[in-house]
Amino acid sequence: MKYPNNLNKNFVKTFSYSNRGMDLEAELNETNEYYLEKDQALIFKKPTPIGLADVSYNEKGRIINKAYFKEPSTLDYNGLYKGKYIEFEAKVTQNKTSFPIQNIHPHQIEHLKKVLKHHGIVFLIIKINDLVYLLKGTDFVDFLNNSTRKSIPYDYLQTKGYLIKYGYNPVLDYLKIVDEVYKEEFYEKSTI
Amino acid sequence: MKYPNNLNKNFVKTFSYSNRGMDLEAELNETNEYYLEKDQALIFKKPTPIGLADVSYNEKGRIINKAYFKEPSTLDYNGLYKGKYIEFEAKVTQNKTSFPIQNIHPHQIEHLKKVLKHHGIVFLIIKINDLVYLLKGTDFVDFLNNSTRKSIPYDYLQTKGYLIKYGYNPVLDYLKIVDEVYKEEFYEKSTI
Repeated sequence: MKYPNNLNKNFVKTFSYSNRGMDLEAELNETNEYYLEKDQALIFKKPTPIGLADVSYNEKGRIINKAYFKEPSTLDYNGLYKGKYIEFEAKVTQNKTSFPIQNIHPHQIEHLKKVLKHHGIVFLIIKINDLVYLLKGTDFVDFLNNSTRKSIPYDYLQTKGYLIKYGYNPVLDYLKIVDEVYKEEFYEKSTI
Repeated sequence: MKYPNNLNKNFVKTFSYSNRGMDLEAELNETNEYYLEKDQALIFKKPTPIGLADVSYNEKGRIINKAYFKEPSTLDYNGLYKGKYIEFEAKVTQNKTSFPIQNIHPHQIEHLKKVLKHHGIVFLIIKINDLVYLLKGTDFVDFLNNSTRKSIPYDYLQTKGYLIKYGYNPVLDYLKIVDEVYKEEFYEKSTI
């Protein structure tokens, strides 16, 4: 890899990692706002859980003077689409050959399994090599159950995942993929 | 109303209001933990949304040095129960004769209507006169559409609402009421 002469390698790596992480989040937030405006779905990113260490009051209300980020025990996005519960986590990796599983906290993996058990729609959205894949929760759990690897090979994501194509508006129309991937769940629903 | 001699009326009012507000939240959190442990439902209080004004880094990670609370645009609790999307808001009022509608932000009311439209289960849990009522989202919207009052009379809550009784474990078994109130939705589901 080539880096601009005046930047060292670590700086570039850190910078581009967080930058791309922000990008996917921004893209999904924009997409969710689009769905909200078009009244297609109600899907929101949950606020990051924080622990309050010092709170004071002024004329405008409560002010947080010290707080820290807590580890999430659920996935970042959840909501309602065509009468179904939807939940997902979105992650970016700079790895080119695999997705490190440690990106998903153990509590989140346990939670994902529970969502499956309670008949919710749950998946991961993974950005790797500038491509965005939807990986069904069941396929993620299958991988965990059948592999001792600490990362999911890019091959697996290409084979089992569903490519979410970039578009103009919405930017990342992942519900189009959800419609295809989970069509039987919606079909059952509509036949009631 | 009688107040202890050494406390002025406003102080008592403010203190007991926030204290009881915490109580209901604590009771619901405890109940949700019970449901989680018993694998009955996955229902969580959303973290309060905050705006970050100043964040720094140390060896442990990110530290928030200044932040403020933002107004929520969804309801406080949401999750998954028997394959259905559930969302609700919980509020305590010290009023004895009515529940002031301003306790629910206009954005939250709009959101509640959208959840109904997208076939989610949505309701309010209101604590008034030390009793806890579940008011269906549809009955709340009916009241808003048919009244110019700025508060919901206690009578209406007693007539249209469903009393959630206090118990030992779980403290507030509101899903028992949800089962009764929304039984047709679950029935439809189970006949698939």
